[in-house]
Amino acid sequence: MAKSLRELGEGGVISIFREAASSDGLGPGMAIGDDCAVFQPAPGQQSLISTDMLVEGVHFRKDTISARDLGWKALAVSISDIAAMGGTPRAAFLALGLPAWADSTLVHELKTGLMDCARAYGARLVGGDTVSTPGSLLLCTTLLGEVPGGMALLRSGARPGDLVYLGGVVGDSAAGLFLLSAQDPVPGTENFAPLLRAHQRPQPQVELGRLLASAGLASAAIDLSDGLLSDLGQICQESGVGARIDLEALPLSRQAMDLAGRVGRDPLDWAVSGGEDYVLLFTVPPASEKRMLSLCRREMGLRPSRVGEIRSEPGLSARRGAAWRRVVPAGFDHFRP
Amino acid sequence: MAKSLRELGEGGVISIFREAASSDGLGPGMAIGDDCAVFQPAPGQQSLISTDMLVEGVHFRKDTISARDLGWKALAVSISDIAAMGGTPRAAFLALGLPAWADSTLVHELKTGLMDCARAYGARLVGGDTVSTPGSLLLCTTLLGEVPGGMALLRSGARPGDLVYLGGVVGDSAAGLFLLSAQDPVPGTENFAPLLRAHQRPQPQVELGRLLASAGLASAAIDLSDGLLSDLGQICQESGVGARIDLEALPLSRQAMDLAGRVGRDPLDWAVSGGEDYVLLFTVPPASEKRMLSLCRREMGLRPSRVGEIRSEPGLSARRGAAWRRVVPAGFDHFRP
Repeated sequence: MAKSLRELGEGGVISIFREAASSDGLGPGMAIGDDCAVFQPAPGQQSLISTDMLVEGVHFRKDTISARDLGWKALAVSISDIAAMGGTPRAAFLALGLPAWADSTLVHELKTGLMDCARAYGARLVGGDTVSTPGSLLLCTTLLGEVPGGMALLRSGARPGDLVYLGGVVGDSAAGLFLLSAQDPVPGTENFAPLLRAHQRPQPQVELGRLLASAGLASAAIDLSDGLLSDLGQICQESGVGARIDLEALPLSRQAMDLAGRVGRDPLDWAVSGGEDYVLLFTVPPASEKRMLSLCRREMGLRPSRVGEIRSEPGLSARRGAAWRRVVPAGFDHFRP
Repeated sequence: MAKSLRELGEGGVISIFREAASSDGLGPGMAIGDDCAVFQPAPGQQSLISTDMLVEGVHFRKDTISARDLGWKALAVSISDIAAMGGTPRAAFLALGLPAWADSTLVHELKTGLMDCARAYGARLVGGDTVSTPGSLLLCTTLLGEVPGGMALLRSGARPGDLVYLGGVVGDSAAGLFLLSAQDPVPGTENFAPLLRAHQRPQPQVELGRLLASAGLASAAIDLSDGLLSDLGQICQESGVGARIDLEALPLSRQAMDLAGRVGRDPLDWAVSGGEDYVLLFTVPPASEKRMLSLCRREMGLRPSRVGEIRSEPGLSARRGAAWRRVVPAGFDHFRP
């Protein structure tokens, strides 16, 4: 039976996570129970650190994601940041803010989803913080990863002439959110499970990031969280370049196109500014293109999609049909709804 | 003139922190602007990581702390965790949740306080996240520090017979909060500035922690955040021991005793369960006591206070007058108000 937070107490909440964490076989000094976690990167490795805050009512709603999927997603978004730098996720921290309606079932479900994700990607939960909140459920994840010294993929390395690649389909997550938020039921929803899964259980491309970094094949990389144009805009800004995107080359899933057709939407809207795809966008010097493609195919059975080109003129242009048009990134901005 | 969040946008908020951070002379790969920060501990050092979430209405109220002090305190509480393990703070991350009432002045003040604290302790701001919240102002800080390999002070090393020491006075922060929350004005408030400062601008004992760790003088340590008995209880639990505390030996400030006298309170209540003192509590094997005291005096001009003893019987006892009585920690529990 579910226990209230009052029955659990702070120690009870912590022990739910602690049992999960310690059963994972942590080394000494890596376990929950001290003021800090201790972390030692392997020789020759640098640490990568990413932190992300998810707020109920802003990043998620209780009616569009289960607690278990939320636990998965809270860690997955940080894993995706590590993936974008070419790193391997190692040690995770969860600062959890619980509102009055939370109970032991919620905490168990969050933990289960988070630990599922940690195990799937070889990370360990090693610390965190537990607090009460007067309003929303809050999850702030911090993740430490490792990357061989000097090999991290940065946003700032894109050069004019580099080719823009996507590691997977875009728009599925936004299509899934559309389905979950739809007022009227959409017929054939049972065929759209992959779209819901893309939104609720994103699969960060750790293996791809690691391959690109270790082989020195990408000049810059980012994970798609805010939206394709917005995130590509980040690479352009940090690299001091511009870019062209061929919208007709964007890899869309059959399910997203099918759903868009049924509900009279343009699937490219989901792909271009939907966000939360958590696939990698990366730039490749033309001389490395062939090797990158053959390595991805051989090592991962993956065929990344070429969707554009880096240009020296600042700003973004997009083509659909014949003409290139200037576009302004319309990704998610927390303060400009 | 203050700008609204809508005028600032997410990029505007980030750039306020980014300017402060980059003016601090970061090395390559340490600056804000990538998916992760890159961190390389010096040779022979281990990384320490701590994360803390502060929630408006739970950890602070707008009317008892200024935005600048809040920025200081948000980082100071994490620095104190690093201090408790004997480490040196290095790289800070701030995940910031801004409600609709926030504006550019608030963001600037938070940044100024946080950067003041970072500079005072030799840490750098290197990353974070910025989100909107439907309710409370939220600050989740993550701090990376360094400690020489294998030298971290843990909670689990206390042994029966070890002496319990405090690195500074206790109760000032709770006395300061009492003043700030008082319905009626307390006469002579101008004399109580140190109490307000203890609550609003805590000074973590990094130097003390480092000294204890590097000289191998403490068997266990913790920083006082939840309250003396509660935090000592943590050490006992992790070490599988109990403890006796001599309440008459607790170091109280003149101002806290003065205030308590004026308002008819027992200053020991503030000292024992007030919390947020952010001084170190540590245990010392009897054979190391003399050397610890002389090192603290010589290196820091500090005289830690001996307040109790570790015992093999589990549980806590406290003495005030002749008799020892069993006590149950009454520190802050987020879910048991």
